[in-house]
Amino acid sequence: MQVRALEWAASGALRILDQTLLPAEERWLELDRVDAVVEAIRSLRVRGAPAIGIAAAMGLVASLRRSLIEPRERFLASADAGCAALAAARPTAVNLTWAMDRMRRCARATPGDVAAIFAALGEEAQAIWNEDRAMCRAIGEHGQALVMDGTNILTHCNTGALATGGIGTALGIVHVAAERGLRVHVWVSETRPLFQGSRLTAWELARAGIPHTLLPDNAAASLMGSGKVDLALVGADRVARNGDAANKVGTYALALIARHHGVPLYVVAPSSSFDPACPGGDAIPIEQRAADEVTRPLGRQAAPEGTAAYNPAFDVTPAALITGYVTENGIRTPPFD
Amino acid sequence: MQVRALEWAASGALRILDQTLLPAEERWLELDRVDAVVEAIRSLRVRGAPAIGIAAAMGLVASLRRSLIEPRERFLASADAGCAALAAARPTAVNLTWAMDRMRRCARATPGDVAAIFAALGEEAQAIWNEDRAMCRAIGEHGQALVMDGTNILTHCNTGALATGGIGTALGIVHVAAERGLRVHVWVSETRPLFQGSRLTAWELARAGIPHTLLPDNAAASLMGSGKVDLALVGADRVARNGDAANKVGTYALALIARHHGVPLYVVAPSSSFDPACPGGDAIPIEQRAADEVTRPLGRQAAPEGTAAYNPAFDVTPAALITGYVTENGIRTPPFD
Repeated sequence: MQVRALEWAASGALRILDQTLLPAEERWLELDRVDAVVEAIRSLRVRGAPAIGIAAAMGLVASLRRSLIEPRERFLASADAGCAALAAARPTAVNLTWAMDRMRRCARATPGDVAAIFAALGEEAQAIWNEDRAMCRAIGEHGQALVMDGTNILTHCNTGALATGGIGTALGIVHVAAERGLRVHVWVSETRPLFQGSRLTAWELARAGIPHTLLPDNAAASLMGSGKVDLALVGADRVARNGDAANKVGTYALALIARHHGVPLYVVAPSSSFDPACPGGDAIPIEQRAADEVTRPLGRQAAPEGTAAYNPAFDVTPAALITGYVTENGIRTPPFD
Repeated sequence: MQVRALEWAASGALRILDQTLLPAEERWLELDRVDAVVEAIRSLRVRGAPAIGIAAAMGLVASLRRSLIEPRERFLASADAGCAALAAARPTAVNLTWAMDRMRRCARATPGDVAAIFAALGEEAQAIWNEDRAMCRAIGEHGQALVMDGTNILTHCNTGALATGGIGTALGIVHVAAERGLRVHVWVSETRPLFQGSRLTAWELARAGIPHTLLPDNAAASLMGSGKVDLALVGADRVARNGDAANKVGTYALALIARHHGVPLYVVAPSSSFDPACPGGDAIPIEQRAADEVTRPLGRQAAPEGTAAYNPAFDVTPAALITGYVTENGIRTPPFD
């Protein structure tokens, strides 16, 4: 069964599956205010670079329904303000600013009354979602060049249906391989501090009936050293022009470990995650998150109260450690102009 | 305040601080049966290579009190059986077999009645503890060659007073530096799956008033890449003759990351953790532990029920990635004959 991260509600609101509650509970939230969507993105109720871009676009539309009574300029100002707030919800994934730029341009470029702009924005949000779904499928198919029957694939965080508007990026390759009858096995790194591997990827793979085994992030070196990993596939929140890639913290370590053991590591991402305006990894802003994500795993105090923690949400893997980039246009190498 | 992991009870029982309950609760257990000591070692109520060797020796003595009514040969057989059971409690740390070999030899070599043997075993256990305390102190002092005022030290798992009979091994170097007034800062990797960094090292450093910051294991590459680590100090559960070192899972990844960033990484361990009979890392048995340590962090289900997990307690860092070995005899390099 294919899961999904988001959809439209009958009311026109954005519906998201609250991923902070998985795997224990499947609760859907209906959001129709910018601040609620910002909160959902910041709190990782919806996460994954492509999914937050789509959620922001759909959430913007949902929020603008109550601005339909405004005059055109005021409506456009509301749209701009919503775009700005949503784009700032998280700093690292470029998809968010990319999607908000598209929505802002669409609003400005649409002639006529606010109903016409609102309709165009709804279509634009749906287009962003549809394009992402198609990109996921194309990525999954291009990625088959890397997979054979019996391939053992290591992945990090969650890059599947829960992270995108379709079947996923890195995990989309796994879904397509399984659809085609290849027997693949997935090594799922648990992905501290928020356990997206344990909570989301293991859940999504179990739903899809794809064999998988969880590991603590720090067991990856032991695992690769024992020859049990053929291929590493990771997502990206932003790929710089030179190929440096920001992704969930821990990716850089996996890339070093993979290189040391001769395991190919591919970054798998749609065009919307590539940022040609960003020259290299040093220019990618890295979100720092609260200490209690580290000190209180799953809400239980692990460290003494008041312990300080270093908690970057992402790290940057230098292009030199990345074997290639699987995109909807095939497997590519930098520079990405 | 210096914490301790174990001591004698007035009754002659072994008293241990139950480390599975830290930092929430400081509960001491009194153990005087071999099976209870084996359980405490297996469950990591007492852990750390040196500490489990000492605990096994003291626990053996405590258990033999009820064999004082046995004839000599039967008493010796009870001692042998206790040593065998305790030595088998965990496979990777060589200290356990080393301590049990000492106790067995001591029993056999002591002439006279069982009271004499029992007294000799009590003295031998105390000697193992005293020697470990002295080794920790000597290690801490030799390690000062690596530390300056302001040094940022990354460590993994817990190698302090909670892991030994003294001030610790890798963390002992930190304790001595702090005693001498050096301003050191410790980066503490949380050490999944059992959070010994969060639960034990952060607690021990807070008690000692030494500045420290916790990080998820998988943030170490980001941290070292940002130049914030001057030195990495880790313990060892067994060092092979060629210098390959088994230590808490994640050490191998840290060593790869440290080497890539030019950060020196030292293994810090007493002689009792060196195994000249073991030619290399391939010959070190690695304990595999239950999946639920990974799937149920701190007792809360993170992954879907039934998720399989890869959970080696240790990994092996090849000697080529280790800058040097701090022992009670100074800083050494292999081979260790």
